[in-house]
Amino acid sequence: MSDPAKHILLTEGPDRTGLIYYVMGVLFRHGLNVIHNNEYVSPAGHFFMRTEFSAPVDGTLGADTLLGELHTALPDSGIVFRLSPQRKKRIVVMVTKEHHCLGDLLIRHAFDELNADILAVVSNYDTLQPLVSKFGIPFHHISHEGRNRDEHEAAIQQTLVQYMPEYIVLAKYMRVLTPHFVNQYPNRIINIHHSFLPAFVGANPYRQAFERGVKIIGATAHFVNNDLDEGPIIAQNVKEVNHRQSATDMATEGRDVEKIVLSQALKLVFTDRVFIAGNRAVVL
Amino acid sequence: MSDPAKHILLTEGPDRTGLIYYVMGVLFRHGLNVIHNNEYVSPAGHFFMRTEFSAPVDGTLGADTLLGELHTALPDSGIVFRLSPQRKKRIVVMVTKEHHCLGDLLIRHAFDELNADILAVVSNYDTLQPLVSKFGIPFHHISHEGRNRDEHEAAIQQTLVQYMPEYIVLAKYMRVLTPHFVNQYPNRIINIHHSFLPAFVGANPYRQAFERGVKIIGATAHFVNNDLDEGPIIAQNVKEVNHRQSATDMATEGRDVEKIVLSQALKLVFTDRVFIAGNRAVVL
Amino acid sequence: MSDPAKHILLTEGPDRTGLIYYVMGVLFRHGLNVIHNNEYVSPAGHFFMRTEFSAPVDGTLGADTLLGELHTALPDSGIVFRLSPQRKKRIVVMVTKEHHCLGDLLIRHAFDELNADILAVVSNYDTLQPLVSKFGIPFHHISHEGRNRDEHEAAIQQTLVQYMPEYIVLAKYMRVLTPHFVNQYPNRIINIHHSFLPAFVGANPYRQAFERGVKIIGATAHFVNNDLDEGPIIAQNVKEVNHRQSATDMATEGRDVEKIVLSQALKLVFTDRVFIAGNRAVVL
Amino acid sequence: MSDPAKHILLTEGPDRTGLIYYVMGVLFRHGLNVIHNNEYVSPAGHFFMRTEFSAPVDGTLGADTLLGELHTALPDSGIVFRLSPQRKKRIVVMVTKEHHCLGDLLIRHAFDELNADILAVVSNYDTLQPLVSKFGIPFHHISHEGRNRDEHEAAIQQTLVQYMPEYIVLAKYMRVLTPHFVNQYPNRIINIHHSFLPAFVGANPYRQAFERGVKIIGATAHFVNNDLDEGPIIAQNVKEVNHRQSATDMATEGRDVEKIVLSQALKLVFTDRVFIAGNRAVVL
Repeated sequence: MSDPAKHILLTEGPDRTGLIYYVMGVLFRHGLNVIHNNEYVSPAGHFFMRTEFSAPVDGTLGADTLLGELHTALPDSGIVFRLSPQRKKRIVVMVTKEHHCLGDLLIRHAFDELNADILAVVSNYDTLQPLVSKFGIPFHHISHEGRNRDEHEAAIQQTLVQYMPEYIVLAKYMRVLTPHFVNQYPNRIINIHHSFLPAFVGANPYRQAFERGVKIIGATAHFVNNDLDEGPIIAQNVKEVNHRQSATDMATEGRDVEKIVLSQALKLVFTDRVFIAGNRAVVL
Repeated sequence: MSDPAKHILLTEGPDRTGLIYYVMGVLFRHGLNVIHNNEYVSPAGHFFMRTEFSAPVDGTLGADTLLGELHTALPDSGIVFRLSPQRKKRIVVMVTKEHHCLGDLLIRHAFDELNADILAVVSNYDTLQPLVSKFGIPFHHISHEGRNRDEHEAAIQQTLVQYMPEYIVLAKYMRVLTPHFVNQYPNRIINIHHSFLPAFVGANPYRQAFERGVKIIGATAHFVNNDLDEGPIIAQNVKEVNHRQSATDMATEGRDVEKIVLSQALKLVFTDRVFIAGNRAVVL
Repeated sequence: MSDPAKHILLTEGPDRTGLIYYVMGVLFRHGLNVIHNNEYVSPAGHFFMRTEFSAPVDGTLGADTLLGELHTALPDSGIVFRLSPQRKKRIVVMVTKEHHCLGDLLIRHAFDELNADILAVVSNYDTLQPLVSKFGIPFHHISHEGRNRDEHEAAIQQTLVQYMPEYIVLAKYMRVLTPHFVNQYPNRIINIHHSFLPAFVGANPYRQAFERGVKIIGATAHFVNNDLDEGPIIAQNVKEVNHRQSATDMATEGRDVEKIVLSQALKLVFTDRVFIAGNRAVVL
Repeated sequence: MSDPAKHILLTEGPDRTGLIYYVMGVLFRHGLNVIHNNEYVSPAGHFFMRTEFSAPVDGTLGADTLLGELHTALPDSGIVFRLSPQRKKRIVVMVTKEHHCLGDLLIRHAFDELNADILAVVSNYDTLQPLVSKFGIPFHHISHEGRNRDEHEAAIQQTLVQYMPEYIVLAKYMRVLTPHFVNQYPNRIINIHHSFLPAFVGANPYRQAFERGVKIIGATAHFVNNDLDEGPIIAQNVKEVNHRQSATDMATEGRDVEKIVLSQALKLVFTDRVFIAGNRAVVL
């Protein structure tokens, strides 16, 4: 822990009396000052805690030492401790043809607002290559044409592995991923869904929204698991619509919601504020 | 039209060139000044218009004369004209055990804010009788116990007919109504559903919302048709929630949304701003 | 602490390393399990913590013992500990002529949703007496006519003291209170202001909002201090408006925002979630 | 009117009985079908109407003919008619150092979503030159250093005039413009202000918001007139904040609101939906 700035300790496991006390004890004995501490116990009895603390001035304490002492303080507890590394997350963005979420991410990335490095963009179309190339980021066009689903995903995976991404961001990637693919990145694939889930699961949600005559549309950023549109929800937002707007108008309005919700979710995940509790996301 | 204040003309029918022109011509020839005019043509080619106009000072023009001239100006057009009567709507409120929507309506009614007269409250429980009696409004406890669904609805209908209500407001009435009952009040039954439809159709939506881990909950006011939770949506609103909130907490928070959405919807309907276009509500 | 349910410990004072550790140590040694713990250190270095914990099954631990041990663990620290009493807050509501906030509070109170007892309603007009009497709550009409401001406030205070309220809720009380009065209830008077403060300070905010042509109106619940509309903000909310709405229309719409914001703020205060940090309210 | 698609007629002037009738009569006699018609009369008696209509199939009607007939139908009425030209608006964007609004506009422009051509970007710093150059748009760095305010504005104006812009968009241009400059573009300069006006007029609104402890921040897009932050408001939006967020955090969150509000306002203006009624913007 050479960086003198703040550190983030993530603690997770079965709840028991005294957990906060033990963790705080280890930090206190090293003179580490807690700046923010957020804790949550789920109804199922799972304990989650996010602790921001400042490192000592001389910077002599190593991460391994600290984690070792935490494990010693709570032996056989099933508690998992993680120290968030002092660097940006490594991500790859996957898209199809729509530019609004990707464009927003590229601008934020260009001005270092993402707390993440976009290592590459992967797409099944070449539509967005000109946009990506403006920002000097590798673009991989991996078409699904002439390939079955498994072959296509294998080709994508071959490209992804060279980048060793911590997170895959589906910024309007419009193909369903197989469980095989998803399982390689458990709780590490983030999707933006163009509806207020669980309303309008599946394709063409704005058409569905128009036909149902809703007065509010929304967007949902969530982790991807094996069921389409079913992983833990990280962030949602909405916008009022009215009868004058066609399905196309709603889609246009919805894009602004989608891009903001996706970037909000990424900000939460990339600052280590999101835990997974079953099928729910806990944001501390 | 003895009242010198503003009048509201509602025009509806198959679209054709010149509709606004013809209607405005009739109003103009009588020296009636248009204050607000809102018009909408649906994608299916149906024309809707709401026209607020001021009556002449001497008040000599009768509603029948005006409607007659409008029909003459547009013979065989399939256009329906309505002049909104200059009085409050007549309504009956139906509830089960929850008080929040009813309480809000009673307060508004007590201070004449509803543009409606609550003629009576009907409930399948007597829980809310003490609340209703504070406001001097008839309360009819019509239990569903010992009656099958048809018998229960028949008993309700027997009570309703004596009040001749224009609208039935389901302010958390928790039993599904049969098509037979609903058909007696086409587009005249308004329900508040405790979710952001079409998410969480059916019972226990806050439990569903909690388990799905949503970050926003909502409520929907809609007309009731034969399919449960499927009629035209009049108004919706939402509220942010988080992982700390249990299903019960969400229900508590949701109640504030429900009562406000219901009263917003009633305000729109009772000021003649809502038209029905297929399964969509047009608010002009 | 005879009640076996959850307890709330509030900790506040100058920040120092180890504060959470010491507090958690005392709780842990008594076998008390922490359910939720929220902590915040202000930029000025003030520490705030709200700890929900469950009492032991046998209920033998007294509040005095616990507070004593906490003080012993942190001698001379300037830290203040409070155990929230296991009972509803005692409040008096003050109003002028508008009913919407009061009506909402009375309904919530009637169904025990406030976590507070409304001991009495005080008003400078008798307009709302009929409403209050429906709910069997004492109503004191203390007119300001024929009295100067000091005399009027003295008469109010004479009535208030017999109720020994913990909080005074100004639910649309439209007279400015003197510093002398306010100082008798430091951080214990809660006001609903009919604008999105700090926009439109003072009287007639909806008229101001109309004339400025804003597209959103709002309401603000805040503690009252000596400067008009200047105490710590507890909660705010907003609503979209448009050019069609007159100042009167905006006021009507605004009332729904006002009553919901006030009740949200009261809920936060009455569940001991609000701390004061200078002129800011910290909600844990 | 060679384009067969929809046309937009804007009508504005002193209200009088029959205005809609006369305008509709002219359109009807040319067989023009009205798709949407929105009309508003301000409290001051000013009439505004926006009429979308479809042109005849053969496209023989000229704009001059139509406008001529409209004037003939309403002689000496003081009514102004405009037919919105069938082309994108011509705009110049002015910025200082912040990229978020500009970046958003550039992405929208690159994908033809603005209904406007960004002819050039003008800045008093060269910070954003690299961003603008990615999109192949002229960037003019016109420093204010070594120039007094009049000289600086004269240099800007010299650059602007060559582009003949219809609108100047201040996308976080952080210098106050003189009345002399503003008067050259009456109701044609659009600014994004980083607060929920009229709260926090002037500089450093997020610092002010933090210190006031507000629970909601916002942004305002408005036309610029001679008084700083005082022109007609076109669009506003807000976002919840809390005590944990510093002034810097609020500024970060606020940027997302700013960029969305600015683009919403531009969309309204560039689709001819915004009229000016005194100091209020009417959006039809």
